[in-house]
Amino acid sequence: MRPVFKIWLENNGKVFGEGPLEILQKVEKTGSLRSAAAQMGMSYNKAWRLIAALEERLGYSLLEKRVGGACGGGSKVTPYAQQLMKRYSELKEEAEIVLEKLYLKHFEGFKT
Amino acid sequence: MRPVFKIWLENNGKVFGEGPLEILQKVEKTGSLRSAAAQMGMSYNKAWRLIAALEERLGYSLLEKRVGGACGGGSKVTPYAQQLMKRYSELKEEAEIVLEKLYLKHFEGFKT
Repeated sequence: MRPVFKIWLENNGKVFGEGPLEILQKVEKTGSLRSAAAQMGMSYNKAWRLIAALEERLGYSLLEKRVGGACGGGSKVTPYAQQLMKRYSELKEEAEIVLEKLYLKHFEGFKT
Repeated sequence: MRPVFKIWLENNGKVFGEGPLEILQKVEKTGSLRSAAAQMGMSYNKAWRLIAALEERLGYSLLEKRVGGACGGGSKVTPYAQQLMKRYSELKEEAEIVLEKLYLKHFEGFKT
C-alpha cells in the first residue's frame, strides 16, 4: 500500500496544478501554445481557454506573445508564470517527501 | 490563493480515500450499506461493487453482516476497516496542517 496525492492552488476556482504546469512547461520547450496543446492531445482552443481562465482568476498573465524571430510569433511564459511554476514544483516535491513520512508514521504496524 | 489537496491509498489500484471513508462512516451511523449508499445518492449495487473491489485489493473485509437485532440484518464495519478509517483520517488531518505550512514556505512573498 502506498499514499498518492494531488495538490493544486485555488483562488475562486482552480488557478494552478499539474495540468497547467505541464502545458506551460511544454510552451517553454516548444515556444508555442499550439504545439504544447498538440503534445497533450488537447485542442488549441481548449488550451487557450484554460490559460485565459487561470489568468483571469490569478489577475496576472501567464503567456505573452513572442514577437518576431525566424518563425515569427508564438508564445512564451511570463516571469510571473515562471515563478508560479517554480514554486508549485518545489511545493509538490517537498509535499511528496513529507506525505510519505506522514504515511509511514500513521500506518506503522498496520497489516497490509 | 490557497492550497487544496487530495490524498488516497493505492495497492494495485485505489484502495482507500475520501469516498470510501464517507461510505463506511455512514454504514457506522446507519448500520446498513443500503442506507449509506442512499444518503450518498449512490445505487446500492454501485456501493456494493466499490466495497468489494476495495476488499479484493486490500485482502481484508471492510464490512460484515450484522446478524439479528430488531431489524434483522444490515452491515457493520470490521475492526480492520475501523483501523483503516482512523489511520487515514489522522493522516489526512495532519497532512492538511503540514501542507498549509509548506505552501506558506514556498509561496512567501509571491504576489497573489
